Amino acid sequence: MKSDVEIAQAAEMHPIGEIAAKLAIADDELELYGKYKAKVTLDAWQRVKDKANGKLILCTAINPTPAGEGKTTTSVGLADALSRRGRKTAAALREPSMGPCFGMKGGAAGGGYAQVVPMEDINLHFTGDFHAITTAHNLLAALIDNHIQQGNALDLDVRRITWKRVLDLNDRALRHVVVGMGGRAHGVPRETGFDITVASEMMAILCLSRDLMDMKEHLGRIVIGYTRDGRAVRAEEIGATGALTLLFKDAVKPNLVQTLEGTPVFIHGGPFANIAHGCNSVIATKFALKFADYVVTEAGFGADLGAEKFLDIKCRFANLSPDAVVIVATVRALKMHGGLSKKELDKVDMAALKKGMENLVKHIENVKKFGLPAVVAVNAFPSDTQEELAFVREACEALGAKAALSEVWAKGGEGGLELAEKVEEALAEKADFRCLYDEKDAIPQKIDTIAREIYGADGVDFTKEAEKQLAELEALGFDKLPICMAKTQYSLSDDAALLGRPEGFRITVRELRLSAGAGFIVALTGSILTMPGLPKQPAAMAMDITEDGKITGLF
Amino acid sequence: MKSDVEIAQAAEMHPIGEIAAKLAIADDELELYGKYKAKVTLDAWQRVKDKANGKLILCTAINPTPAGEGKTTTSVGLADALSRRGRKTAAALREPSMGPCFGMKGGAAGGGYAQVVPMEDINLHFTGDFHAITTAHNLLAALIDNHIQQGNALDLDVRRITWKRVLDLNDRALRHVVVGMGGRAHGVPRETGFDITVASEMMAILCLSRDLMDMKEHLGRIVIGYTRDGRAVRAEEIGATGALTLLFKDAVKPNLVQTLEGTPVFIHGGPFANIAHGCNSVIATKFALKFADYVVTEAGFGADLGAEKFLDIKCRFANLSPDAVVIVATVRALKMHGGLSKKELDKVDMAALKKGMENLVKHIENVKKFGLPAVVAVNAFPSDTQEELAFVREACEALGAKAALSEVWAKGGEGGLELAEKVEEALAEKADFRCLYDEKDAIPQKIDTIAREIYGADGVDFTKEAEKQLAELEALGFDKLPICMAKTQYSLSDDAALLGRPEGFRITVRELRLSAGAGFIVALTGSILTMPGLPKQPAAMAMDITEDGKITGLF
Repeated sequence: MKSDVEIAQAAEMHPIGEIAAKLAIADDELELYGKYKAKVTLDAWQRVKDKANGKLILCTAINPTPAGEGKTTTSVGLADALSRRGRKTAAALREPSMGPCFGMKGGAAGGGYAQVVPMEDINLHFTGDFHAITTAHNLLAALIDNHIQQGNALDLDVRRITWKRVLDLNDRALRHVVVGMGGRAHGVPRETGFDITVASEMMAILCLSRDLMDMKEHLGRIVIGYTRDGRAVRAEEIGATGALTLLFKDAVKPNLVQTLEGTPVFIHGGPFANIAHGCNSVIATKFALKFADYVVTEAGFGADLGAEKFLDIKCRFANLSPDAVVIVATVRALKMHGGLSKKELDKVDMAALKKGMENLVKHIENVKKFGLPAVVAVNAFPSDTQEELAFVREACEALGAKAALSEVWAKGGEGGLELAEKVEEALAEKADFRCLYDEKDAIPQKIDTIAREIYGADGVDFTKEAEKQLAELEALGFDKLPICMAKTQYSLSDDAALLGRPEGFRITVRELRLSAGAGFIVALTGSILTMPGLPKQPAAMAMDITEDGKITGLF
Repeated sequence: MKSDVEIAQAAEMHPIGEIAAKLAIADDELELYGKYKAKVTLDAWQRVKDKANGKLILCTAINPTPAGEGKTTTSVGLADALSRRGRKTAAALREPSMGPCFGMKGGAAGGGYAQVVPMEDINLHFTGDFHAITTAHNLLAALIDNHIQQGNALDLDVRRITWKRVLDLNDRALRHVVVGMGGRAHGVPRETGFDITVASEMMAILCLSRDLMDMKEHLGRIVIGYTRDGRAVRAEEIGATGALTLLFKDAVKPNLVQTLEGTPVFIHGGPFANIAHGCNSVIATKFALKFADYVVTEAGFGADLGAEKFLDIKCRFANLSPDAVVIVATVRALKMHGGLSKKELDKVDMAALKKGMENLVKHIENVKKFGLPAVVAVNAFPSDTQEELAFVREACEALGAKAALSEVWAKGGEGGLELAEKVEEALAEKADFRCLYDEKDAIPQKIDTIAREIYGADGVDFTKEAEKQLAELEALGFDKLPICMAKTQYSLSDDAALLGRPEGFRITVRELRLSAGAGFIVALTGSILTMPGLPKQPAAMAMDITEDGKITGLF
């Protein structure tokens, strides 16, 4: 069996201008990055901005298990299948981070015969968007430390600088650092740390801004820390919002690439799905909706986190109205939700499947709460039996959700034709999208709504620390913002071990973090690592490149 | 008077394919980065690698003073002038770092009417080469800390890890940091620091390698630290040389841009001129020499550092044989070398000029020691008088060096026609290039040769610390490498205050640092900062970008 990178390398790519032409994007509206990548200019946006939007299809999933679910792969395959059905289609996806690429995961641009190419470039530096974020984020940090060193005119409390630094790598040793050591010429000593670039608030800002000028406003609004008398200090007071914005002049433009089958794909931005909202940029989604009739997009983690935040944060801010939601599940993952261990997944166990199915059922119910039709994509594995597949399909249909087998990993777009058909049927229904809560509600009320409605919790508790932060956010007037939940992705609850559809639990909010620039409040329900570590055997160890440029080990 | 960025923005750029065509580089040998930047493929190299080289002209300068000398500006103007004279010309220059750009200096792509464009892009992310270095450098650091965390099988001495981290920013608070704080899940605490990316040994490696496979070998050879029993540990033992190399697959290709007058310019790499050798990549210089008949290149700082290292390190490694050296001087800077203060430079003071002229004389003598003809370019300022200019010209000619007035800042290539003519006369002479010392000599002998021959010192002293390091390098067999001198750029001596042509001084070597990957020994003669700080009013504060994309404050 071929590896992902082997399949990708065997593909015959089309010059990106030909791909753009499928969406009627002209050559002079492209800024090429080599032959197979391009940024689409903002002039192109000016030309199409008043056109009607295409249909927006969100691809999300059940709570992930080690058995995998294949959200990106399904998104890519669905877009290819819609293309095969003659629809003018584009996908809008996230850019992968190099941290997991060199750490655990290898590449992240789909899999099998449902991939985005050139996968090596997409997984490495791509067009430099993440590097722009890293640089701007760290420039702001350097300016803050320089401000303190040069006299601290703003009277910043060095114990309460919330703006850290970032790198697009997994590097646990940088989580907690002391900077400014070495004497008075070398800064003021203080505790701080590094996050991974995808956790940068600037990443969330890039992904939620309408354009560069909107981005500039968001950047200026970032709260970087507090003065010694407790006033929140904005980035604009440090005084370099113009320079920060300048660094994004190219990064703000969406990137265009292609699937293995030549379907156009906008890949742009990739915020963490825990402390940020976890979906590609508003700009890319809006571009895709103007240029294509069908747009497939995805959201990070399971639907309880990814879809909820896509709908309640991204769609709210960007005034987007999605038309259908695809929920990806695998029979194997459902059996894990039903209690089987990873080793037992090859055997048929209808009782486990039935029990695990409850996880999927809850996500279907949730999608309906947003007024949207749900389509279940059962991502096929060789070990699946007809009996199991029939069971899942019937259970979905009993809930009024369409279901289709997806074989895009093995067969590309052809393996997604049934799914595409069901999606088109769902699109024919009238969606009636609504956000789940009013952003003007009190913070505890907003969190309570999400916890009860989406997670199925009995309520929410705040730790003492979180209550203190709540009082401060309310006092400073930062409470009228949407909530960005940071919770384990593995369970509907805040306990990763509770699989299936847990009941009778409460959610504990341990920390509230302000992302004033991005425009949301992060509610952390556990200890969320914003800088991953490398495993015992990092994926980087297996990678190589030969004299003729052939790359191995990137899978 | 227009600012540099205003002049650059007013320029009519040609599509980069048209610029490439001037060098007979085909469209399919370019990887475009937007309309005005491209990387030249390695296939193009395969096509031309057996052709004869063009003429190589090194542009260097007297010891810099606050009055400025204008080395990059002169290089660009000279290339334009040679083009105007009908010569097939290319320049090969360094990429600027974002650290100084946001700190003191603003842009660094020439000045006035002798600039390289698009200057905004060149001064910001450009084609991502520096970001690739930052990422690879920090990936290696993360792998080292992960190795320690996962059991430290190599028995690394955490007090003797010499591999630090880098960012392409000025950030003094990162010079000395403690990482790995926060408990056992978050790494092993140890002291380390961050350098600016241009100080990364990987930058030196990128600039000294022949191709990607050569780079891989150099990367594997990096010494990252020592075991507890004193053995030097190479990067290849950490085990990710393939992944590091992968990150350079695009960065290794030289970038092509253009001057304001449409002369092709290769811009590639930009190592520090103190702890590294301070000139653009070997790859870019070699490309330029195959595609053009005349190649103008530059070296950092004054000729005592820049030219010496260009000739003794870069030319030695790459087997390059330069044909002529241009030494840039200004009347104002010579008067500062003669004892005037910055405020007194507008007045004519022939005694000061005569005294300061000794600095230039020494550099002319030095160029001859390498067997090369010298041409002095007097970079014109409005305050210069005929009497002063005539004096400088005659003094140069008395030494057998040609001299020409250069007005390229104000007039572009037209202002460099006299200089170009003199350079062509010098090229007609037979150069007889030789390196200054044999790399097989003992370390003290090599340093002594440089100090006596180039700086005019009476000898060299080693501190106790440096002597200890010397003994260790010899014991480990790392002594048969060229020397990379790290010395103040402001004086021929190691005391920045000694202007003109100091005599009766000795050089003190305070530290020897091994760059085993790059392949040289750095001899530090003072405390060299490898991470600059930001000034009281960083240049970033004045930068901005408007809605229609117009950039201001980048000068």
